[in-house]
Amino acid sequence: MEITNQPLIVEALRGGRVESLHAVDAVIASADGSIAAVHGDGDRGVFPRSAIKALQALPLVESGAADRFGFSPAHLALACSSHNGEPVHTAGAGEMLAAAGLSQTCLECGAQLPYHPRDHEALVRSGELAGAIHNNCSGKHSGFLAFAVQEGMETAGYVNATHPVQKEIAGVLETVTGAAHGEDNYGIDGCSIPTYEIPLASLAVAYARFGTGSDPGRERSAAMLRLRDACMAHPVMVAGSERFDTAMMQALPGRVFTKTGAEGVFIIAIPELGLGAALKCRDGATRAAEVACAHLVESMLEESDSKLSQAEVKALKELCNPVLKNRNEIVVGSLRTRP
Amino acid sequence: MEITNQPLIVEALRGGRVESLHAVDAVIASADGSIAAVHGDGDRGVFPRSAIKALQALPLVESGAADRFGFSPAHLALACSSHNGEPVHTAGAGEMLAAAGLSQTCLECGAQLPYHPRDHEALVRSGELAGAIHNNCSGKHSGFLAFAVQEGMETAGYVNATHPVQKEIAGVLETVTGAAHGEDNYGIDGCSIPTYEIPLASLAVAYARFGTGSDPGRERSAAMLRLRDACMAHPVMVAGSERFDTAMMQALPGRVFTKTGAEGVFIIAIPELGLGAALKCRDGATRAAEVACAHLVESMLEESDSKLSQAEVKALKELCNPVLKNRNEIVVGSLRTRP
Repeated sequence: MEITNQPLIVEALRGGRVESLHAVDAVIASADGSIAAVHGDGDRGVFPRSAIKALQALPLVESGAADRFGFSPAHLALACSSHNGEPVHTAGAGEMLAAAGLSQTCLECGAQLPYHPRDHEALVRSGELAGAIHNNCSGKHSGFLAFAVQEGMETAGYVNATHPVQKEIAGVLETVTGAAHGEDNYGIDGCSIPTYEIPLASLAVAYARFGTGSDPGRERSAAMLRLRDACMAHPVMVAGSERFDTAMMQALPGRVFTKTGAEGVFIIAIPELGLGAALKCRDGATRAAEVACAHLVESMLEESDSKLSQAEVKALKELCNPVLKNRNEIVVGSLRTRP
Repeated sequence: MEITNQPLIVEALRGGRVESLHAVDAVIASADGSIAAVHGDGDRGVFPRSAIKALQALPLVESGAADRFGFSPAHLALACSSHNGEPVHTAGAGEMLAAAGLSQTCLECGAQLPYHPRDHEALVRSGELAGAIHNNCSGKHSGFLAFAVQEGMETAGYVNATHPVQKEIAGVLETVTGAAHGEDNYGIDGCSIPTYEIPLASLAVAYARFGTGSDPGRERSAAMLRLRDACMAHPVMVAGSERFDTAMMQALPGRVFTKTGAEGVFIIAIPELGLGAALKCRDGATRAAEVACAHLVESMLEESDSKLSQAEVKALKELCNPVLKNRNEIVVGSLRTRP
């Protein structure tokens, strides 16, 4: 591990030549706040976007809403997800809303066609319109709404920065990350909730804490571990078919938690190492952020002499070096981290 | 205009803050080979991908195939296009194939769903499968096939680098760009034809020549002007609804030719200035390449004191600063070239 002002470089190869390249800033940290490694600019502020979802779900658990409404671990994983809009995801979000006495008309995340072509096509063929329930954030929003019901808050307008749901969440994020959440570092996310710039190193520390349940409050510590375990036990609920986070958590069952965010963000937690990590591709490309995430997971485990099964090694290698195919399914190139 | 080793920087803003950024290499040149401006690395090799299509169409015109098969200017524009797969595009490609005595089963570009959501949905709803005719390259491939018929070549396998169609095209590209096309700089494109790395400056010179018909051969010169005029007269055929190249050529009718290529490439020709340009976003992002393209067109015209109508100025400004909206159609940010 090292501290370097050089970012990780992810290369897109075509015909053996570098066609495009991406620079990725990354930090690896421990729950006590110590920094284990930096690539590039670790102090830069980033909008964590959907990579922060598991922390945004803490109030759902800590408030008792998850227990009151009988949410299963699969439901909790869905509350932390950026899902494909597959039937298993929309059904799960529907169950969460129904348990809280609500329906999908309460969702304010906006309509979105399912990510996965298969489900996208099935929906279009059925003649049904895409709804907010298919939005990749509908599980998170169902969790927000359940929390609002539990707290006796008005549900309408729950996406706004001034709504008590978002204020509560911003307060939790400030506490866990140590970064102020205010008008200075505020933006609007794809699903209309606020997103706040957080230094990359603070995100890495926050996810080291999340991955190890390291919080002075016993309830928060328990909530972190419950959400972590739910996601690692139900990786399909966190993303879905042919998605990176699902493949990664299936490749290393119970050993790693990863979560993507729009514009090339990732967070990582490896509980057995007591480490967290955060990365941001400077240009916002998901393809490069995924390769950098796989590379960091691989190197964190290898450098700590962790035991990896042959199957784990093979699956990680594939995530580190995805092949690029063209419309005739001919292999035309690949992605890799520059050696 | 200037020579600088600093690339253009395109910023993606969210809530007034820079969320992501892109570095773009660019060269502006004249037909005589002189370089008017460089941003970043002008000598770098780039796979031009679909940005080279108008030059790849030269043999179609020079061989007499376009005349023999009665191709209209709209058909010629389609031969240079990366189209949306809208009905007007698939019909046009079908006409080209039929005129040459062929059908869409001869296309070897691979199946692709139409780019535009409207046409994508219409196709899926109809229960029809996406075919090679919907592939954004089907116009180019129809042109290749018409050329093969004209020359009495076997049509099967026309996408392969060893086929006489591709050898002929590689020879034309070598002549016009001055860059060798061989195994050293070879890759396979999305539609399975060969693509060859060409120095960015050579591409810029080649498109200055294309835009002004500057070639020692009278036939080639005429073919360049014919293809250029066809594209500028039929910008909808070059791309389609809500596409950058179409919007740009509609914004400056008869004054500019632009063409996108995958992985963040663009070429530009501004005949009235005698200039050509080529750019490549280092990370391959189309969103940044489009903004950089609009910025270069705007500054090339402004710095030469060209007369621009108010409508032209306004349309260019919009292409230089596209707004980013979320799933609820709320404005969350914008793109811009760093001042």
